[in-house]
This record gives sequence, structure tokens and C-alpha cells, in this order.
Amino acid sequence: MVTEDRPVPPVPADFTFAALSPATFLDRAAYAFADRIAIIDGNRRFTYSDFHRRVARLTSVLEGLGIGPGDRVAALCTNSHVMLELHNAVPAHGSVLVPLNIRLSEVELVYIIEHSGATLLVATAEFAERAHVVGAATGVRVVVAASEPSDEYEQLLRGASEPVYREPDERGLLAVNYTSGTTGRPKGVMYHHRGAYLQALAMAYHAGLGTGSRYLWTLPMFHCDGWCFTWAVTAAGGTHVCLRSIDTAQVWRHFFADGITHFSAAPTVLTMIAEDPAAAALDHSVHAGTGGAPPSPALLERMAGLGIEITHLYGMTETFGPIVVNQWQPDWDVGSAADRAVRTARQGIGNIAAGHVRVVAPEGVDVPADGETQGELVVRGNNVMLGYYRDADATTAATIDGWLRTGDLAVMHPDGYVEIRDRSKDVIISGGENIASVEVERVLDGHPGVVESAVVGRADERWGEIPVAYVTVRGGAQVEADDLIAFARERLARFKVPREIVFADLPKTSTGKIKKHALRRGE
Amino acid sequence: MVTEDRPVPPVPADFTFAALSPATFLDRAAYAFADRIAIIDGNRRFTYSDFHRRVARLTSVLEGLGIGPGDRVAALCTNSHVMLELHNAVPAHGSVLVPLNIRLSEVELVYIIEHSGATLLVATAEFAERAHVVGAATGVRVVVAASEPSDEYEQLLRGASEPVYREPDERGLLAVNYTSGTTGRPKGVMYHHRGAYLQALAMAYHAGLGTGSRYLWTLPMFHCDGWCFTWAVTAAGGTHVCLRSIDTAQVWRHFFADGITHFSAAPTVLTMIAEDPAAAALDHSVHAGTGGAPPSPALLERMAGLGIEITHLYGMTETFGPIVVNQWQPDWDVGSAADRAVRTARQGIGNIAAGHVRVVAPEGVDVPADGETQGELVVRGNNVMLGYYRDADATTAATIDGWLRTGDLAVMHPDGYVEIRDRSKDVIISGGENIASVEVERVLDGHPGVVESAVVGRADERWGEIPVAYVTVRGGAQVEADDLIAFARERLARFKVPREIVFADLPKTSTGKIKKHALRRGE
Repeated sequence: MVTEDRPVPPVPADFTFAALSPATFLDRAAYAFADRIAIIDGNRRFTYSDFHRRVARLTSVLEGLGIGPGDRVAALCTNSHVMLELHNAVPAHGSVLVPLNIRLSEVELVYIIEHSGATLLVATAEFAERAHVVGAATGVRVVVAASEPSDEYEQLLRGASEPVYREPDERGLLAVNYTSGTTGRPKGVMYHHRGAYLQALAMAYHAGLGTGSRYLWTLPMFHCDGWCFTWAVTAAGGTHVCLRSIDTAQVWRHFFADGITHFSAAPTVLTMIAEDPAAAALDHSVHAGTGGAPPSPALLERMAGLGIEITHLYGMTETFGPIVVNQWQPDWDVGSAADRAVRTARQGIGNIAAGHVRVVAPEGVDVPADGETQGELVVRGNNVMLGYYRDADATTAATIDGWLRTGDLAVMHPDGYVEIRDRSKDVIISGGENIASVEVERVLDGHPGVVESAVVGRADERWGEIPVAYVTVRGGAQVEADDLIAFARERLARFKVPREIVFADLPKTSTGKIKKHALRRGE
Repeated sequence: MVTEDRPVPPVPADFTFAALSPATFLDRAAYAFADRIAIIDGNRRFTYSDFHRRVARLTSVLEGLGIGPGDRVAALCTNSHVMLELHNAVPAHGSVLVPLNIRLSEVELVYIIEHSGATLLVATAEFAERAHVVGAATGVRVVVAASEPSDEYEQLLRGASEPVYREPDERGLLAVNYTSGTTGRPKGVMYHHRGAYLQALAMAYHAGLGTGSRYLWTLPMFHCDGWCFTWAVTAAGGTHVCLRSIDTAQVWRHFFADGITHFSAAPTVLTMIAEDPAAAALDHSVHAGTGGAPPSPALLERMAGLGIEITHLYGMTETFGPIVVNQWQPDWDVGSAADRAVRTARQGIGNIAAGHVRVVAPEGVDVPADGETQGELVVRGNNVMLGYYRDADATTAATIDGWLRTGDLAVMHPDGYVEIRDRSKDVIISGGENIASVEVERVLDGHPGVVESAVVGRADERWGEIPVAYVTVRGGAQVEADDLIAFARERLARFKVPREIVFADLPKTSTGKIKKHALRRGE
């Protein structure tokens, strides 16, 4: 590496202050780990020096495309070097990243582009066609990265001039991450630089990432910016190993061929990995973070047999990913496998950079730490979102007395560890994806033959939960289940479409609310 | 643990912001690790619950003694539960800690008490007498902690009422750490909450501290607040094992009996530990951070044979301890022992929370990263002091273009790692302590028989360096070396007193400056 390639950060006036921004980790890595492999993406390999140089050029490209400070840049990208480059260039440039869930329908993508006001959409090759459709519908400028010499993204990088870096306001807007949440329309969760910086440090700490770490990207980078591992791996000087789609045979090839040390995945994905024919005991220790549902004792045992050590985590888009970690205590090693599984099923304690986490009764006081009394988990601190983008009402509704309501029912154990007892009643978690039942109901209710509907999750071995719709049909209307499913499929991401339609009168409370608990129990 | 004992942090208005303060780690630990052993100090053991309860009471004691926000609280304490309690109670209470070097003379202590304006001095039993002398000289209120039921510290804690917590300004004053520095009089290095918080996270990360860690306090806690390990160990939920004085036989007893996993020490102390008759190969891996001088290949090999893995670090009081770490890269393992020693001798890269570190020529431009061209190491960022207390001129003199000058000459290697080539010429480092030659010279020059003096360090196997004074005597004066040493001993800490006096004419440059380099070379 030649000295000229070194990043030259802007020199601020104050020697005792630097804005906390996750993009600064790449500046450090480009100095300290210049020749180490930063990214493996298929046949392409980038050193930290390459990575930094490309990011510097990308800031110039953004500026050249007319993106100004605070402007939104949407990304419809698979786990790739492109997505990692955007995660560093956009914050360094002072614009705002909008990572898009690649599984959303075109209608949903259009909604988010319009709601966020994004003026640029960068897509990887897999989604070129959909990006152009969205572009045509919204007028957003589309750039496609095909990772080939002829693609526009690479052409723009090659034509870049001087990098454009802006010192951020650390509490300013870093990204808007859209989530299904619980109330239908996707909501834009506003991330700030400070929160992402601290969360990245916390993830690097808890996962024990170091220069020798190789992180396999099974977790989508568009999910909470990959729980901030997009920056944490860089902070540690480790290697990002991109997985462009979940292919469990491929996962095993990476485990062995690339010496993977870390990855993150929902328990459903862990099960798929364990069930793959290529599954075999690893020759080195691998650490996996899991969340969305507690890993079962059987799964833990199976993973341990393969050499994969599991840490249970809890978080939501609003908390930059895992704000709660099941930090293991050495005394717990001595228990039986069953004891350990009971311990592991608990979500845990606030992470090292998190604020206090509490479980509160409706009136706002802490429930007793007895492991039995349920309350709502509430959180606060630096790794909590600024609020919902352009939705002050939703922000207000999500908070109580200076705390963020998670909507999840939990108990506090006597030792201070939190355990979620019930997912917020309106959210279905299928294959690690949140499905807002209200959103699906709204679509079904839009069908001319439907009176009303209620969508609940049903336990499923593979997906954790699948959405099932209970539907009341208008008198005289001829509606078939297949019609309704096709109707939903045109309007929703595939994973949100009900797997089953049950025609029924809906059970209601005396005040007219649908008794979803009864539906879930199959009553 | 009962729920009532839980800390109740103040509820701020903003759910997405918490001031970064190192005292908050204890709040988290008191929830998450309530029943784990936080501190072992002789026969006393405190759980995190105990620790937090005592700290809460201590905030009340401070308030009761009339200490207000921003008031200075000096600590003349050995490594002890008392010092750890002060490190948490004082910041939580909103006052400012002034940790005193226990090796200073009474005259020096009086100077610091007066310069800092401290109104309370807490001392452990070892220093009761000196504390009372200083109290008599300055009027500062003295509280002695004898760790016995009858001592005043414990009496005050028992009589405490409601805790007094104040939400800090994260960039506000946390502590004033006095250093000899290079210009004689001790200077008060102003620490801020944010810097200590981030440095503690960085230390927890780099040392790999976890709930199973047991940190042996060989490093004095008064040194840069123990490089912020006073807070880092708590952040990790590990155990502080106090060592009230450096007794290498005791170190080995702790290694084996308490399962020590981590400690920090200057190479001179490492050598003493390795040379102790009790030294024997450990049954578990121990990680030691070392700084002040590069560890020699012989020392590294010896420590490795005992099971002690060494990380080389660099920092100064102005940087909250180690701002530069020799972060090891896995490829380096394959080299020969000699290659590894050459790598380890380098100080390294900015730590994970540090800003950029540079090596600059006098005109302020970076020297080439060729491993040969020397320049001055300059640093900036969140783990750099606010400045010198009540000494704006010294602050200005220590900075250049928004960077802090370390005063140390270094080279930048092609891979981005820094290596110190020469300690700032005026500082002698003896047994890990900085001695400002100017300060010693000022004392010697005060002797009626002395014309002028120059104090330099001489290499010493045990202490790293020892101070040697070159003295020019007035014509006709009868001055013996022993007289001068006795004269110095009355006015300086023992470690600063010259070990040898050489009577000579001092070599000078054409502009009249003493050629200290020549003296160091023995010319």
C-alpha cells in the first residue's frame, strides 16, 4: 500500500471530540488493516485498502448524482460488497441510507421510496428489473450494480473524482430502516450515527470479533443494517463473507473453505443449516447469534454437536438490532443440558452499550423480578431510534414516560435476565421476518367479498410461524380460499401471504374487539 | 437479591439518549451480575449488588460532607475497594475525582490539593498519617478508610441516607489526573465522562474481558484511573482483585488461588514477576497489557513459557491510558519468535474507540510510512483529555492544529503500525513512573552549592531507567553527592531522587542549551 492511498479524515477543530459515526471504523481499518481481506463476495476479494478507496469514490459518485446532505439513498441489495460500500459511503458523505427489504412487493417498495423521499435507488443485479419498475413508478434515479465491468455502478466508481466527506452530527439521521411493525403500513425507523457506532462496538464486544474473525452474512444486511455487524466486523478488522442468498449447502462450503467464525441467524435458519446434508462437525469453533424466537434445547444440542456455539439475543428494528443479549455466566456451564437450555431461552440483559431495560406493568411500574409476573419490555438509551420518520404520532404511541415500548410481553427473572413470554399479539414472525397482521388484514378486507378478517400466526416447524387468516365472507358472495390468496399475493410480499384461509365468524369481546388469542389457540 | 436493592437510575426525558458516563456500567452490572463477585480485597468480597449499594451510599456521604457538583474529591488510596467505590460514586454524584499518586511527597501532595482545590481527601489506612499531615497543611477535610468497623469511611457509609445521583454532561469534568509531564510542576489532566466511557469499552474489547474475567490490580488505580480498567472490568461483569502493594509472591498466589485472567504492568514489573521464586507455568491462560517501554524478546519468551500472553500498549495520562494498541494479526503467528518480538515491540494502532493517530514532521505533515523517518506522534479524538486544569498555556503548548502532541518520537511502519523510537527527551521512566527531569533539576538547582544541573535517565535492568544527575558546583563550594541526594529526598518522591550524582561541566549547544543527548550517551 502506498501512503497516498491512505484516508485523510477531515481535521476538526477540537482535539478532544470526534463525532461518533460508524463510518469512522473504516477509516481506522484502512490504516490498521490495509492489506487484510475486508470482503469476500463470490470471486471478488477486497482488502481494507480497496474497500476504503471504493467507498471514497462512492461518496464522490453520490455527490455527482446530485445527492446532498440529508438526502435519502435507497438500497435494494443482496448481501454484497455493494451494500457494505453503501453502508460506509452514505454516512461518510452525509446522506441517509434507506435499506430495503428485498422480499417486499413492488407496491410496497414504491410506498417506501415515496414515503422516504429517496432520490437514488442502488440495486444489485438480482433486483435490476424490480428496481427499474420502481424507478418508472416513482421517478427515483436507479443505479444497478452487476459486479461486472460493464455495469453502471462500476462505471460511476471508475469515473469518480475527489471524495466528499462531511463531519456528521452524531445524533443526526444515519439511516431510515422500514419495518412492518404492528400497525400495518411500513414505518421508517430513524437511526442516528451515535447509536449505530455504539451498537457496532457492543456487537464487536459481545461476539468477540477480532482481526481473525470471518463473519458469514446469513443475516440480511437490510435488517437493522445487519444488526450493525455491517460496521462491527469492520471495526474489528475482520472479514465480511457475503452470502447472496440463503443456500444452506453454500453456508457449509463457506464454514469449511473460508474458516467462518461468526454468523447470525433466526432459529428457523439455524434449523435449516443443521438439516442440510452437508452438515458435519466443524474443525473450528463458530459463534452464532440468534434471535426472533428462543432456540429450542434440541436445536442447541444439535448445534453444539456441530461445533456451533449459540448466543441468544433480542432486539427490534427500533433498537439497532440486539439491545438485549443473553450474556453467559461461567457458573452456568456446570448445569445439565436442560438447565443450560432454560438459561439460553432467556433473552438476557441490556448489552454493554445499552441503557437500562425494564419490564413494566400497564401503570408503568416495574413488575416484581419473580420470573412469573408479565409486563411489557421497555428500553431506552443510545441504541434506540430517534423515532419514526414522518410519523410523530406513531413515535408518541410507541413511547411511555421516556421509554420505548417494545410491544413484547416479558418477565424479569430474579437474576436480572429478561425472558419474552409472548410476542406482541399483532406480530407474526415467519422465517425471521416480521409480519404485521393488521397489514395483511387490510389487504384481505379490501376484497369485495370479505366482511372482515383476522390474521394470526400458527406455529410451524420450519418457519417458526406462518400467517393464517380467519375471514368472514359477505352473505351471498362466492369467495374461494385460492381467490383470496391470489388477491393477497398481488399486493403483499410473498412471506406475508396467508398460507391458509379459514372461513368463520370471528369471536369477539364484549367491546367488539376480535379475540385473537382465541383464534391462535384454535378456538 | 431483593428488588428493593436494585438501582433506580434517574429517568431522562429522551428515550434515545443517555449521557456516556463510566459510572453507568455499575448500574448495569448491579442488575445483570448482582450476585457475582465484583471485588476481592484481602479478606473482603463484594458482590455487584454490594458494590452498587455502597456506591449509592457513598454518593449520599459526599453530599452530606458538603461536596457539590463539580467539587473536587481527592483520593490517596491504594488499589482497594475504596478506590473503586470512589471511581463510581464521585462521577455518579457529579463531583470530580482527583486520584493522587501514592508515591508523591507531602510537599507534592499539598501542591496538588491546593491546585485542584479539592475539599475532601479520602485515604486508605496505609496513608492515614500523610493524609492528616496534608490535611493540616491545606485544611482539606480528611476521611480515612481503614476497612475496619471503627473507621470513619465505614461509619459514614453506614450513616448514609438517600443516594444523590446527577445526570452528567458527558463532556463535563470527570476527574483531574495529575501527571509529572515534562515541564516540572504536576499538571492536572482533565478527563471527561465520554472519554472514560469509550476508553473503558475499548479496554474491555481489546483485553477480551467477560463475566469470567478476574483482573489483578498490579497497575495503580491512580494511574489514568487504572487505564480505565476501573470501569472496564465492571462493564464486563468481571472481578476486580485488589493488590494493595506490588508483592510479586502475592501476585503468584493470586494467579493460582484466584484464577487471575488479566492484569496490566510495565515491563519492569513483568520482569519482577517472572523473577519471583514462586514463578511457575500457569494452568490457565493469562493476558497482560504492558506499556511504558517495549517488552524485550527475552521477556516475551519468558512470559509465554509461564502462560502469560502479552499485548503491547501505548498511552499517556492525557489519553486515558492506552490509546494505541498492538492489535495482533493472525498471520503474524507464523513468524519466528524473533519476528514476533519485532512485531510486539511496536506500539500499534489507535484503539477501537480512538481517533486517528499520526506521526508528523515539525511542519505538521505526515512523515512517510517507511518505518524509518521519525516524527512526533500526535493523537486526537474522544479519548483525549479536555486540557490541563487551570493551565490554558500548557494546553495550548501541547496541541498543534487540533491534535495533541505526545512529545514522543515515532516512526510509522508501512502497515500503519506506530513504533516509538525515542521517549520525549525530558521524561525519565523509572518503574513505570514518569519523572520530569526538569522538576528534579529545579530542586537540585535550589541547593546553595549548585550552579546548574541536568538530570537524565540511565538504562537499568530492574527499573527500566534510573535518574542520574549531572551537576556543576559553585566555585569553592563543598558539596558531596550524599548531601545533594538527602536534599532531594526531602523535597521529592523517593522514585524521583537521583541515584547517582556526577559532578561535571555540562556540555552545551551553541545556543546554550544543555546537550542532554550527550549526557545520556555518557559523553
